Amino acid sequence: MTPAVLQPESDVFIQAEEMPSPGSTVIIGFPGSGLVGSISVSYLIDVLEFKQIGYITSRFFPPMALMSNGVISVPVRIYAKDKFVAILADIPIQPAICYEVAKTLIQWFTLVSIQEIIVIAGIITNDSESRVFATVTEKELLEKLPETCVPLPIGNISGIAGSILLEAKINKIQGIGLLAETINAPDPRASASAISVLKTYFSLDIDVSALFEQAESIESQMHSLAEEVSQHNTDDMQKREILPMYG
Amino acid sequence: MTPAVLQPESDVFIQAEEMPSPGSTVIIGFPGSGLVGSISVSYLIDVLEFKQIGYITSRFFPPMALMSNGVISVPVRIYAKDKFVAILADIPIQPAICYEVAKTLIQWFTLVSIQEIIVIAGIITNDSESRVFATVTEKELLEKLPETCVPLPIGNISGIAGSILLEAKINKIQGIGLLAETINAPDPRASASAISVLKTYFSLDIDVSALFEQAESIESQMHSLAEEVSQHNTDDMQKREILPMYG
Amino acid sequence: MTPAVLQPESDVFIQAEEMPSPGSTVIIGFPGSGLVGSISVSYLIDVLEFKQIGYITSRFFPPMALMSNGVISVPVRIYAKDKFVAILADIPIQPAICYEVAKTLIQWFTLVSIQEIIVIAGIITNDSESRVFATVTEKELLEKLPETCVPLPIGNISGIAGSILLEAKINKIQGIGLLAETINAPDPRASASAISVLKTYFSLDIDVSALFEQAESIESQMHSLAEEVSQHNTDDMQKREILPMYG
Amino acid sequence: MTPAVLQPESDVFIQAEEMPSPGSTVIIGFPGSGLVGSISVSYLIDVLEFKQIGYITSRFFPPMALMSNGVISVPVRIYAKDKFVAILADIPIQPAICYEVAKTLIQWFTLVSIQEIIVIAGIITNDSESRVFATVTEKELLEKLPETCVPLPIGNISGIAGSILLEAKINKIQGIGLLAETINAPDPRASASAISVLKTYFSLDIDVSALFEQAESIESQMHSLAEEVSQHNTDDMQKREILPMYG
Amino acid sequence: MTPAVLQPESDVFIQAEEMPSPGSTVIIGFPGSGLVGSISVSYLIDVLEFKQIGYITSRFFPPMALMSNGVISVPVRIYAKDKFVAILADIPIQPAICYEVAKTLIQWFTLVSIQEIIVIAGIITNDSESRVFATVTEKELLEKLPETCVPLPIGNISGIAGSILLEAKINKIQGIGLLAETINAPDPRASASAISVLKTYFSLDIDVSALFEQAESIESQMHSLAEEVSQHNTDDMQKREILPMYG
Repeated sequence: MTPAVLQPESDVFIQAEEMPSPGSTVIIGFPGSGLVGSISVSYLIDVLEFKQIGYITSRFFPPMALMSNGVISVPVRIYAKDKFVAILADIPIQPAICYEVAKTLIQWFTLVSIQEIIVIAGIITNDSESRVFATVTEKELLEKLPETCVPLPIGNISGIAGSILLEAKINKIQGIGLLAETINAPDPRASASAISVLKTYFSLDIDVSALFEQAESIESQMHSLAEEVSQHNTDDMQKREILPMYG
Repeated sequence: MTPAVLQPESDVFIQAEEMPSPGSTVIIGFPGSGLVGSISVSYLIDVLEFKQIGYITSRFFPPMALMSNGVISVPVRIYAKDKFVAILADIPIQPAICYEVAKTLIQWFTLVSIQEIIVIAGIITNDSESRVFATVTEKELLEKLPETCVPLPIGNISGIAGSILLEAKINKIQGIGLLAETINAPDPRASASAISVLKTYFSLDIDVSALFEQAESIESQMHSLAEEVSQHNTDDMQKREILPMYG
Repeated sequence: MTPAVLQPESDVFIQAEEMPSPGSTVIIGFPGSGLVGSISVSYLIDVLEFKQIGYITSRFFPPMALMSNGVISVPVRIYAKDKFVAILADIPIQPAICYEVAKTLIQWFTLVSIQEIIVIAGIITNDSESRVFATVTEKELLEKLPETCVPLPIGNISGIAGSILLEAKINKIQGIGLLAETINAPDPRASASAISVLKTYFSLDIDVSALFEQAESIESQMHSLAEEVSQHNTDDMQKREILPMYG
Repeated sequence: MTPAVLQPESDVFIQAEEMPSPGSTVIIGFPGSGLVGSISVSYLIDVLEFKQIGYITSRFFPPMALMSNGVISVPVRIYAKDKFVAILADIPIQPAICYEVAKTLIQWFTLVSIQEIIVIAGIITNDSESRVFATVTEKELLEKLPETCVPLPIGNISGIAGSILLEAKINKIQGIGLLAETINAPDPRASASAISVLKTYFSLDIDVSALFEQAESIESQMHSLAEEVSQHNTDDMQKREILPMYG
Repeated sequence: MTPAVLQPESDVFIQAEEMPSPGSTVIIGFPGSGLVGSISVSYLIDVLEFKQIGYITSRFFPPMALMSNGVISVPVRIYAKDKFVAILADIPIQPAICYEVAKTLIQWFTLVSIQEIIVIAGIITNDSESRVFATVTEKELLEKLPETCVPLPIGNISGIAGSILLEAKINKIQGIGLLAETINAPDPRASASAISVLKTYFSLDIDVSALFEQAESIESQMHSLAEEVSQHNTDDMQKREILPMYG
């Protein structure tokens, strides 16, 4: 067990109780559009049984402890399994500190010999077709990606996902961004699409059907809600129709 | 007498004239929902006759001196009694400085060999049943807590209470959060519930009836007020009824 | 002549051309409610013929030079006379810098062996009876104060006066706050009440009648103004009465 | 290959993998009015086939990665070709950091022996005549400029273009600002005017016709849009005319 | 030629290529009420043919380059002529940085043995009589001033002019503030009044008639504008009179 505390004087701390295997791939998910990043990475961690090895803290993160079944958990955590490292965040990162967080992460990735970075996020499009767009730090990486990935023709990625990919490029670490088309609500379906790309890319033995079930359950709830609202509006209109005209 | 001044260069100062007994439990109450934290800890200090041993100051605390019977008192104070330390705050801590305050406290707790941290706070629920929820830094602690405590299934604790529990977990100090269901008003009844948990947990000889009396007095005042308002509204409605219809 | 420049690297500078006598009492007045602090200390300085020995500057004070009879004066000044030091401010201190100013003052008081601090300020009450409330850093001081002083039962002092008393208590320097009941206007009458307490406490030979004259002059002006306004309103109402009804 | 990292402790980083030829001219384009600066420099880079040699990053730049054909690119980049260096920005620079960015650029220009700086920008005038105004750091430079340039009689340049020219003057580096008259929309026509000045000044073999085609395409789109809007308004007015007069 | 760069690590830089003669008087003009400070000092520089010897820059000044006849100029400049130094600013100084700028100026004045400081500014009064008010750092200076100057009985000077005079007083450098009565518009007439005081004080051979001509030209323009507005209003009223009464 090799403890690694990075930058004790910095504004962002990374503390890990175990070193990842050299040459690991790190998969990163922060909450964002459709919560695609955090749902995807959380699912991977559960299904592939990653082990928590550390966490990231900062004076600039919101003062908040998360709780699950009565136990406190740190909002940004580091996990590892074989040749994989995962970084999972339950809190969003404010724009003003994205640069700092990304720089600290990249420093640590260099220190622990990470070979490849994959950032998973959602992207809101006008007409979602459940596509997964890809963007990479070096052109050659596009050829290695599964054909189901669509290279994003033009655009920009803002926020922590953008900052991490930018710092990866600057520091010559292979970086891949997977942007799953999503909507403005927690979106397990888009997360499943993103994981399917990873499944092909890394030949993982992983079943995303649970995510589709979650998606159907959410969608069914939203459908019922929409019907209720519609019914309610009809009722409301009917009620209005029987109101006296001098109302 | 061993003076301890922590971090003279920091933004948060802890100054104590006496060292607590090694292995002490620290009980912490800041004002917050229902003022449960500060009412509970203040009551404990009074009833168990703790002695003030220090205080905490910061350039980020509001510039304010408190007065009681003509004597100035420091707004955040440290008390001790046997194997207990208590931290009582009369001022709230702004979110921007929670991280700093929590980190400084944990450093001091480590320095003076605190074994366990208990943070008392209020939690507002839709349908209060005077429950006390518990959240802990390590799962094993849940089993040691009295059965009257309900492990909080899911949620988050924001503010200084959350920051302290998070830092406790990160620094591997046992931490317990007791969150008493409360309302948006000073709430001695919820404070009594929280203290009852401590009473069982530590086998303390402590009587919370004074808190129930305070609660009844406050509730009776609020009841009278509500009746007055209701009476006033009725009067008002009666007056309106005799207004000319062309008003 | 012993020059003393405190903290050349700090954000608050104290520069004094003469050292006060060791064991001096410092009397402090900042503007605030009723301007009681600055009116009182300014009057003491004039009547007892204190000599200016230094000043306090800061990058956080407003960029402003005061002028009197064509001559520039520094807004926060230090005076001395026998066993007394006086600090008189013509500008208010913003809350964000109160902690810093108070800390720097207390450091200097320690350096020049000040024995006792008296802060004069105004306090606005619902029903002013020209009382002077007292608050002290150590209970024993209450007994030394004249009987005309009322120990303030409960409350808080915010702003620079509160910060100075807090730092005095923390640094174990005797501190007394004299809070004269006042109104929201320059109030020489309340200032006279505060000075009367000092007169008894220090057996000073000082006449406050000039302050009462100032008070009567201000009150007479305000009375005339009130009558004019009232007359004007009556005129205005009479004018309205002769307006044509189709206005 | 000579790596040059400037100011690793600063808030603005310049990192270049190759040193420009000593005595180079640097041509700088930031987005701004009509995007004239970035359109012009981007066109030069494409047509003259500059090679990317570095980039500029800062904690104060917005957290954003740009993407083109699936590949991430750094928002502020350095290019070189023969005796030319080009700096091209895809993001605007906030006023608060212009001073810092300009100072860091000038330090680097001095380090790599840049001889001359040309900043291209747009200027919005009431009555655009496609003029290119010039402003220089030393009067003698005006005589070297093509006659098509109009020395700007009076005015000021704010933002990053102004800051760079100011620092050039202070550091005695030859600086030229070319301000092409433009409108509040991406303006390839104004960019072509600016490039035409460079063409004459440096006897470059460069064809700006592609920019004119872009301009015509944009203008044609805007013309169609204007007609549609106008048609729509007429429709709207006709509809209103048939509304009953008692509306 | 003696280069003098003050405080390379500071937030305010003074860079001068020549040292002023020891014992010089510095005359300072910043824009402010009626632009009296900058108009006066600019006029002195032109008429007495001062030579530019340096400039002042800061990260806190607005990012802006000034241009005149196609040539960039630094917004805050230092000039010298015989026993005079002049500081002329074309940009206002924000309150938050006045302290820093004043302190840096006074440090430089001490370094180059400036003997006397004269700050020229405008003051808006209810009933302007073209007076020039004076305020000084030491009472004795009032007697040396021309009789046309009126010592300002009471008041305060805020902003950079106030900060400079305050720092002058604190550092025991002779300081004079000349405040010419002015209006809320560029005011060459008030500037002429201020220069007339300097003319007498230093027995300068200087003609202010050009300023009076500027003043008449401005006043004539404003008179025409006022007549036009008035005529326009009359037209407007006449138009309204012929509107149908049922409008």
